[in-house]
Amino acid sequence: MHGWAGKILDVNLTTRAIQTRALDETSARLFLGGRGLGARLLWDEVGAGIDPLSPENVLIFTTGPLTATGYQTSNRFSVSTKSPLTGTILDANSGGYWGMQFKRAGYDALIVRGRAETPVYLEIKPSGITFHDAQTLWGKRVRATTHALGQNNHKRNVLCIGPAGENCSRIAAIMNDGERALARGGAGAVMGSKNLKAIVVEGNTRPEIVNQELFKFMLYETRKLLRASPLTSQALPEFGTSVVMNIVNTIGALPTRNFQQSQFEAGRAEAIAGETLTEKYLVKNAACWACPIGCTRISKTARGEGEGPEYETLWAFGAQCGIDDLPAIIEANSICNDLGLDTISAGSTIGCAMELTERGLLDSDLRFGRADLLAPTLEAMGARRGIGAELADGSARLAKQFGAPELSMSVKGLEMPAYDPRGMQGQGLLYATSNRGACHMRGNMLGLEVLGLPKLIDRFQVQGKSSFVILHQNSAAAIDSLVICKFTNMGVAEEYFARVLTAVTGIPYATGELIRVGERVWNLERLYNLREGFTRADDTLPPRLLNDAVTEGPSQGWVAKLEPMLQEYYRVRGWDAQGVPKPRKLKELGLDSCVVQ
Amino acid sequence: MHGWAGKILDVNLTTRAIQTRALDETSARLFLGGRGLGARLLWDEVGAGIDPLSPENVLIFTTGPLTATGYQTSNRFSVSTKSPLTGTILDANSGGYWGMQFKRAGYDALIVRGRAETPVYLEIKPSGITFHDAQTLWGKRVRATTHALGQNNHKRNVLCIGPAGENCSRIAAIMNDGERALARGGAGAVMGSKNLKAIVVEGNTRPEIVNQELFKFMLYETRKLLRASPLTSQALPEFGTSVVMNIVNTIGALPTRNFQQSQFEAGRAEAIAGETLTEKYLVKNAACWACPIGCTRISKTARGEGEGPEYETLWAFGAQCGIDDLPAIIEANSICNDLGLDTISAGSTIGCAMELTERGLLDSDLRFGRADLLAPTLEAMGARRGIGAELADGSARLAKQFGAPELSMSVKGLEMPAYDPRGMQGQGLLYATSNRGACHMRGNMLGLEVLGLPKLIDRFQVQGKSSFVILHQNSAAAIDSLVICKFTNMGVAEEYFARVLTAVTGIPYATGELIRVGERVWNLERLYNLREGFTRADDTLPPRLLNDAVTEGPSQGWVAKLEPMLQEYYRVRGWDAQGVPKPRKLKELGLDSCVVQ
Repeated sequence: MHGWAGKILDVNLTTRAIQTRALDETSARLFLGGRGLGARLLWDEVGAGIDPLSPENVLIFTTGPLTATGYQTSNRFSVSTKSPLTGTILDANSGGYWGMQFKRAGYDALIVRGRAETPVYLEIKPSGITFHDAQTLWGKRVRATTHALGQNNHKRNVLCIGPAGENCSRIAAIMNDGERALARGGAGAVMGSKNLKAIVVEGNTRPEIVNQELFKFMLYETRKLLRASPLTSQALPEFGTSVVMNIVNTIGALPTRNFQQSQFEAGRAEAIAGETLTEKYLVKNAACWACPIGCTRISKTARGEGEGPEYETLWAFGAQCGIDDLPAIIEANSICNDLGLDTISAGSTIGCAMELTERGLLDSDLRFGRADLLAPTLEAMGARRGIGAELADGSARLAKQFGAPELSMSVKGLEMPAYDPRGMQGQGLLYATSNRGACHMRGNMLGLEVLGLPKLIDRFQVQGKSSFVILHQNSAAAIDSLVICKFTNMGVAEEYFARVLTAVTGIPYATGELIRVGERVWNLERLYNLREGFTRADDTLPPRLLNDAVTEGPSQGWVAKLEPMLQEYYRVRGWDAQGVPKPRKLKELGLDSCVVQ
Repeated sequence: MHGWAGKILDVNLTTRAIQTRALDETSARLFLGGRGLGARLLWDEVGAGIDPLSPENVLIFTTGPLTATGYQTSNRFSVSTKSPLTGTILDANSGGYWGMQFKRAGYDALIVRGRAETPVYLEIKPSGITFHDAQTLWGKRVRATTHALGQNNHKRNVLCIGPAGENCSRIAAIMNDGERALARGGAGAVMGSKNLKAIVVEGNTRPEIVNQELFKFMLYETRKLLRASPLTSQALPEFGTSVVMNIVNTIGALPTRNFQQSQFEAGRAEAIAGETLTEKYLVKNAACWACPIGCTRISKTARGEGEGPEYETLWAFGAQCGIDDLPAIIEANSICNDLGLDTISAGSTIGCAMELTERGLLDSDLRFGRADLLAPTLEAMGARRGIGAELADGSARLAKQFGAPELSMSVKGLEMPAYDPRGMQGQGLLYATSNRGACHMRGNMLGLEVLGLPKLIDRFQVQGKSSFVILHQNSAAAIDSLVICKFTNMGVAEEYFARVLTAVTGIPYATGELIRVGERVWNLERLYNLREGFTRADDTLPPRLLNDAVTEGPSQGWVAKLEPMLQEYYRVRGWDAQGVPKPRKLKELGLDSCVVQ
């Protein structure tokens, strides 16, 4: 008896062929689910060099072995595809209810391939899969689409794109449950290119749990730890993710005005921080399915009500654009959710446009501090209209087009999140090496370099830093493959997750094997990028961070000292000096059959 | 207003002069207390090259800023001296009640210098310090001495040496509260060389807590975390430290028969593990003052009742000697406590003698498995009688004397504890670099390399390992300077300790500053050893571990790959290739006035 009863649903939009097949047990054991399984499937499905917006690309939605079991935060799911923004492998994941519902419809993964001739949406129920015409939905925004398709948190859940995805904006998100995003890297554009407006799911089967007794014990133990941890019991429920705004600003690591400064002026970070959001605009907290933390904010201003904004969003439309007008940021967030746009990339791209304009390279009204232009600019981006057409494909293309590629604050084309690597050296190494481009969710150093959870390391130290980054990258990849929320890991060690995995599958998993899954996933993603032609030269940061020292504040005098960290990183990873995994490492990970050329 | 109201008591046994002086605030801020303050004082008090057993050596007893405040596990205290076993700097610390009582007598530190002409004991009360003749106590064992001097856990506490210390055994411990040891490195011999039998303390003043509100909040938060952590709420209270015996044996890291094997045979580790101890011989749990964990075992056999044995002791007289006779081990532990002998060094030295005998180098009856010889051998060691005279100064001197120095399983002369570095590479680096010689309490890798708390790293990996060892070494040095119990840190991050320190002293301490104290202490200890003539060549492991691969079990084929880890370690520490702290590092730590030559 075991817990890998998974099924893969395979839908061809061109031919309308529908297949199901069993998830092979070896892949399940080696890659678990979520991001890992997605990478494994994508490796086989999509060969090198295809256009991400062509019918040859696939969208792979995955759940994990814990999804829908009821374990704390077992609500998440993942999408894998080749990114139209970066050309790298991409995965993005989201909380909410859709993932749980999809798993309860009886599937572990959904592969969507081809392209529908005219807009369609898919309906997935235990009783069968249906194609529906979506021509009347095409052009509708996310909330309207979600409502029209009968969203009901516990019974019927809607995943869809908005106008941004329809218009193949390379920073378009896939949205679910009306307000939640598979945000980064432009998966929404891939869905749009396929003429797939939405996927609606209804489920009714509960996943099997082999060892109920152990499972219940782990539920109980996890609850205790989440209630004791200051982050999961206090900071996140009370203030949401933006509780870190003041902390990051205080240490001089809050990128400001397109990373020209690393600290927002006195009072201005406070004005957009979680404390202010809670005090002035919070309606109530909410939570994803099976989540006892409840970091979700429902906020309301004169111009509307909705989920968020999260810390990264507050930064992207705030400090990054020199803006401290919280209602304007809340509105920008709400528009992005409704258009289906990645807030980090959208905000950072606007910040980039502001600098291009101030430097006389771009002819626009966008200037740092122009809060009034956020909403119209975003609307124009979603519609690919006017200036919005220039911004809709992200900052790298924008900055290149206007002759200053160095002003895009991105890695591999993905905009950096809200931490300045000059004030958090490990975070810089993380950005430079993340396989989907600059990302804070593949091993965030905030805990180690700033908060001191579970330990504090010197944020400026360079020597020996790679070990910590690699540890957290592998751990994050494992957690993304389970799939659960990384906030749980703020209070609960991976050892617990291994025991839960054991309880659910009946297969004894040691903690080391779980972490090893993460390392395997990381290396496979690296192989994917190498196959696409990425090289060591792509593991870098914008020249501003490497060359221009911070001029004031607690990080004054610092640049990102990437090169020595990178060399050490390759060595500790078991890769050669060019960043290519050595055959011995691949063999150790069971990846020796994955050949790059 | 601040919390450094400390006083140093300075007692000269030769002249009977007694002085008190204020603890200078700079030292207090930079070194806190405990091990850190002890190192700082010792650096000034004891110049290079003195004989540790001469009157020139000093014994420095220290408490820390948290001692006796009532914060969880704020019961510990520390002794610092030049070790007669290793010639390095030495500190050893202990829980119980004595430290709390000493602090409540109004002191932060006690320096004992010189030598009394005839045996004396000291009595320290708030009302004054008294010298007492101890000639009638001389020769008495620890329990008898403690009883004779009126031990009363909450009112009057006794610290003393037993016959081993009197006879200047270089592995003699200083004992307190009848059963607890400042065990390692031979501090008991220093006390014996000074003709100081005991120090009795009575206290009545509570230390000041500047911010009571914050302090109470931290008490509450800490309690929550200790109750949620599986180690502090379950494993340690239920089974004591020996709960790890089966775990360490299962992975093939339990040194067996003087490190000839790394795994004890099937059933034999189980026979001496915490589960068996609890089932068969546990009378009840006990706890140090202000400790909610309560890992202390009170065990009883036909041959007596007493505290312990701890994991290390069970190993030292168990696997290390090829013995699985639990009652014999419990008895050996009890004898050591009564004679005042370090159980790790005593057991490991007997194991060494067993191998010397089996190899025909030593003429004795000691052979692996001879449980019946433990008690008589220990009695002979305490009395320096017969074979005991050969063993009383530890395995390094024994093995050298009988022509096989490589058979002493020690680093810098201090016997290694119960983890085989061939199965835990980071632990090997820890042993090789620990400033008092091989030690598991200066940054134990058990959590990271085995338990996965707070994270799991690959126990066999060498590249990148030094970062973790250094992180834990610095953290351990900070905690030893506070002084609290490291088990608290299993569930509670250093960030909490920084906030408690802030509450107690009124001086805002950031987590980073606290860890920096640990790094400062580590570097000062290193300077002390360099001043004594130690070099890079002393940062090593017994040749057996470097050259002889494990022949079976889960660590099969492994040796300790020390050299690459050591090179990386020096680099990450900011030391030169010879292991000497660079001037820049010393300046950064405020240690530039500490000159080695």
